[in-house]
Amino acid sequence: MLAAQGDAVDAINPIQALSEAERIDRLRLIRSDNVGPRTFRALLDRFGTARAALERLPDLARRGGAARTGRICSADEAKAELAASRKLGVSWLAPGEDGYPPRLGTIDDAPPLLAVRGAITTAMRPMIAIVGSRNASGAGLKFAGQLARELGEAGFVVISGLARGIDQSAHRASVASGTVAVLAGGHDCIYPPEHEDLLAAILDQQGVAISEMPLGHEPRARDFPRRNRLISGASLGVVVVEAAHRSGSLITARMAAEQGREVFAVPGSPLDPRTAGTNALIKQGATMVTEAEDVLAALRPIIGPAVAALRQGASGFAMEDDEDGPPDVASADARARIVALLGPVPVPVDD
Amino acid sequence: MLAAQGDAVDAINPIQALSEAERIDRLRLIRSDNVGPRTFRALLDRFGTARAALERLPDLARRGGAARTGRICSADEAKAELAASRKLGVSWLAPGEDGYPPRLGTIDDAPPLLAVRGAITTAMRPMIAIVGSRNASGAGLKFAGQLARELGEAGFVVISGLARGIDQSAHRASVASGTVAVLAGGHDCIYPPEHEDLLAAILDQQGVAISEMPLGHEPRARDFPRRNRLISGASLGVVVVEAAHRSGSLITARMAAEQGREVFAVPGSPLDPRTAGTNALIKQGATMVTEAEDVLAALRPIIGPAVAALRQGASGFAMEDDEDGPPDVASADARARIVALLGPVPVPVDD
Repeated sequence: MLAAQGDAVDAINPIQALSEAERIDRLRLIRSDNVGPRTFRALLDRFGTARAALERLPDLARRGGAARTGRICSADEAKAELAASRKLGVSWLAPGEDGYPPRLGTIDDAPPLLAVRGAITTAMRPMIAIVGSRNASGAGLKFAGQLARELGEAGFVVISGLARGIDQSAHRASVASGTVAVLAGGHDCIYPPEHEDLLAAILDQQGVAISEMPLGHEPRARDFPRRNRLISGASLGVVVVEAAHRSGSLITARMAAEQGREVFAVPGSPLDPRTAGTNALIKQGATMVTEAEDVLAALRPIIGPAVAALRQGASGFAMEDDEDGPPDVASADARARIVALLGPVPVPVDD
Repeated sequence: MLAAQGDAVDAINPIQALSEAERIDRLRLIRSDNVGPRTFRALLDRFGTARAALERLPDLARRGGAARTGRICSADEAKAELAASRKLGVSWLAPGEDGYPPRLGTIDDAPPLLAVRGAITTAMRPMIAIVGSRNASGAGLKFAGQLARELGEAGFVVISGLARGIDQSAHRASVASGTVAVLAGGHDCIYPPEHEDLLAAILDQQGVAISEMPLGHEPRARDFPRRNRLISGASLGVVVVEAAHRSGSLITARMAAEQGREVFAVPGSPLDPRTAGTNALIKQGATMVTEAEDVLAALRPIIGPAVAALRQGASGFAMEDDEDGPPDVASADARARIVALLGPVPVPVDD
């Protein structure tokens, strides 16, 4: 696959902001029939620009043996979508552009254009996903909130799916520190509808909502697994708080593993079916999480020593094994900036 | 240490039953001041017989710089203890004698004489320890019972400490398949006293009680950790079902690890202090247990393929990954005999 390499290069060497013409062309290309993220990337690699790829599409379809040429999105349609998006405060961004979560740009099937609404700076910070059951236990909801609060205080952005249950708890507890909601539908089709207030609170406080779907797209069942790859792809690791067997959160965990992200799971009683999935993940090698420090300890080798330094100042952690040292006077805000400066994207040895 | 090697040889080459004279001498030696299991073993290795060691004790104490010679147990005292024990149906057995749990004979500080009451055949079968909190949750008690029942059906003897809570549940659920209670006091000082009925039921059904303490010895706090090494030492592995931080069950787990036994732990919610200890064990590398199969799978490489064969016939296990094959017609009784025949003691390569 050329796609993976191309994505990685984009993410490491941020592209200039796209010209309006190129953004329109790219939106046309990804909106055209038979073009998904992987095909888009292959076409761009082969033909250099979206415009050149659009011109070759009919010919390619014929040579590929397609019974009929797929529909190609017109420039007018693309312009109309961009205009409608702007009215909602939604920008369509390419991997490498400011506001496109940097890690998300590194996955094989990264959205060629991502609809981003909210604070650009938050979208650029290191993220940890917290996901889990819609019908979670009281303990699960409480733990998700506690974990989200502590990871937020440690400088991480909490990313989740805006669903009922664990997602909701994780978002609510990290509204103040910055949280990202990943939508399965378009930005004007919030699901579940009763979470529009939660999303408004998220956006009010420097949070972000992202989607790869067009405006007006009502999420269908199959859109949720597809959406889940964005949650894991944008994050350093995914914490599954409660999950029954065969639940959607396990799909997110599987995608995280495939994408090379850390997988974390919170244990529970063997007699509680709501934690059968998380216990199974731990048996399969996921890192067991009973406190935020378990997540931070696993991420230190990835994101660097600054996370270790941050920890002393973060409230709510067990301090038992802290070494002696000068008191940490950094504010949560300064900590967040330090983590943001570190950047979540691996840097080539040559740099 | 000579002790470890000596123990292992004893266990592999079962000794003849002791003569009455040798049993009396050994009881005198272990009841004498400043002689514990390790010293006993070293003395026996050095002088060949308990009688020879007894004769050298005063001289050894002087040369060791002892301020005063320790008291040496008289032959009359030892005879009286053996007689009183027999009246209760208690035999004092040496490692390698029939009725002394074979694995227990292999630990460094195995009791030189063990007071055994109950069915000799059960004491010789492979054992798995199930231990945990006295004040366990309802779920913990239920899981302990379920696990004990399934491991019993798979042919294992369940060994535990006759305590309230998890121990009690594990014993009750394995009365029918055979269970061993390890006492911290003498056989006539059952603790807690309200478990005398449980012990009677255990002994009624081919179960066993063991203790290294003299008759009349009321258990003190420090006797329980000492007792715990017998639970782990006699078993192939220890399953900790629920344990708070710093609980006695964690001592049993630590001893199991030191003795080279498998350590298993049952997970629980991070918000439940009753499972903080078991979750910590899993983080430290204990095998996570959510069903009996987790224990059986870990023990198969130790005890051999027969356990795998047993599994098909054992009720209550997930059968999902069972391979096709002829139906298993072996009764639980036959399975138990097969496991017993396998023997839990490693056999030297030469044999």
